[in-house]
Amino acid sequence: MMSRTIRAERVGVTREQILTAAERLFAEYGVCAASNRRISEAAGQGNTAAVGYHFGGKADLVRAIVRRHAVPIEELRARMVAAAEGSDDVRDWVSCMVRPVTEHLAALGSPTWYARFLAQVGTDPALCEILDEENRTSPSLRRAVDGFTHCLPELPAAVQAERGTMMRQLILHTCAERERALARGAATPRASWHDAATGLIDALVGLWLAPVTHPS
Amino acid sequence: MMSRTIRAERVGVTREQILTAAERLFAEYGVCAASNRRISEAAGQGNTAAVGYHFGGKADLVRAIVRRHAVPIEELRARMVAAAEGSDDVRDWVSCMVRPVTEHLAALGSPTWYARFLAQVGTDPALCEILDEENRTSPSLRRAVDGFTHCLPELPAAVQAERGTMMRQLILHTCAERERALARGAATPRASWHDAATGLIDALVGLWLAPVTHPS
Repeated sequence: MMSRTIRAERVGVTREQILTAAERLFAEYGVCAASNRRISEAAGQGNTAAVGYHFGGKADLVRAIVRRHAVPIEELRARMVAAAEGSDDVRDWVSCMVRPVTEHLAALGSPTWYARFLAQVGTDPALCEILDEENRTSPSLRRAVDGFTHCLPELPAAVQAERGTMMRQLILHTCAERERALARGAATPRASWHDAATGLIDALVGLWLAPVTHPS
Repeated sequence: MMSRTIRAERVGVTREQILTAAERLFAEYGVCAASNRRISEAAGQGNTAAVGYHFGGKADLVRAIVRRHAVPIEELRARMVAAAEGSDDVRDWVSCMVRPVTEHLAALGSPTWYARFLAQVGTDPALCEILDEENRTSPSLRRAVDGFTHCLPELPAAVQAERGTMMRQLILHTCAERERALARGAATPRASWHDAATGLIDALVGLWLAPVTHPS
């Protein structure tokens, strides 16, 4: 009989293999289209029911992949938010939202699958709630929201909420678009994730500082 | 025997019923999750193979739904682009990109499903090419791209391409987010599609006019 430690380690390795295979298949074929059976096979599991055994349903598997990336992104963002504390330069706060994501993607090496995966999760009616939940529980995101309010005290609360949502959408889908272009070998407007982040930060600073037309 | 005209009319009605049912199920349950069988049933077709018979595969069905909306949107945009011709105010060109979409959604009445459907198509690896194709064949979109170049001659071409992509993503996903909030009965920052468009136009004008940091 295996000792309990060795067994736990093996389970840990299997789970990681499944998460990695699932993320890749989700990005390349679609979150809904990639079956548990196919993921089990791609993860090198003899038992094609391995995904169900280790993760339950699709939503649980998706949540586990989101969490695996949310941890390092939250760490990066917590550090940046702490450094930005008290700043009234909106660029600092936009950077706190963009750089942790792009630095994490850059650190994963090439290719990445996470951005394409996440863009699907964000638009899937059965799964998008998972992203909202993760965002709600991030302490650094909450502090960043306060940072924007502090920087832009004259921006009406509804417009602040509106632009905050636009910012999240734009970061998510711009990263996914870049990842998609890289995967196809297509041209990209920027040579690196770092430079892509700079372009995104420029655009988002403009978005936040734009004058507000009051509704008729 | 039915006359040829009556038969063609019946086929037309059936196809419309299928497109309407498919769009709703795609928005509510997911483009990949909603089966042809379920769509046939929701469209009131006794034969559960009706979708396959009339549209072939999922990609063909998705393309037919996209086209059904692309026609009125193209008409609205062609009119606005013609009116904006020669303008060097970037707001005019941003409006040409935003208003045709939001006015079309407003004209559909409540609820709408198209924005949630389209956001999924845009992020699905098996389907996103359909949107790119539709965009490439739109004459008014091409003229609008020229409009931006004319307005912002000093913006480097790569940044112009980058911001053009950001604009398309932001329009698509902001409309989907608003539609999702309306469907849930959640609060929205704006009371109407018209006002949501104004907020989106304000933000996008800021995005286009933002200063460019040159990459290190």
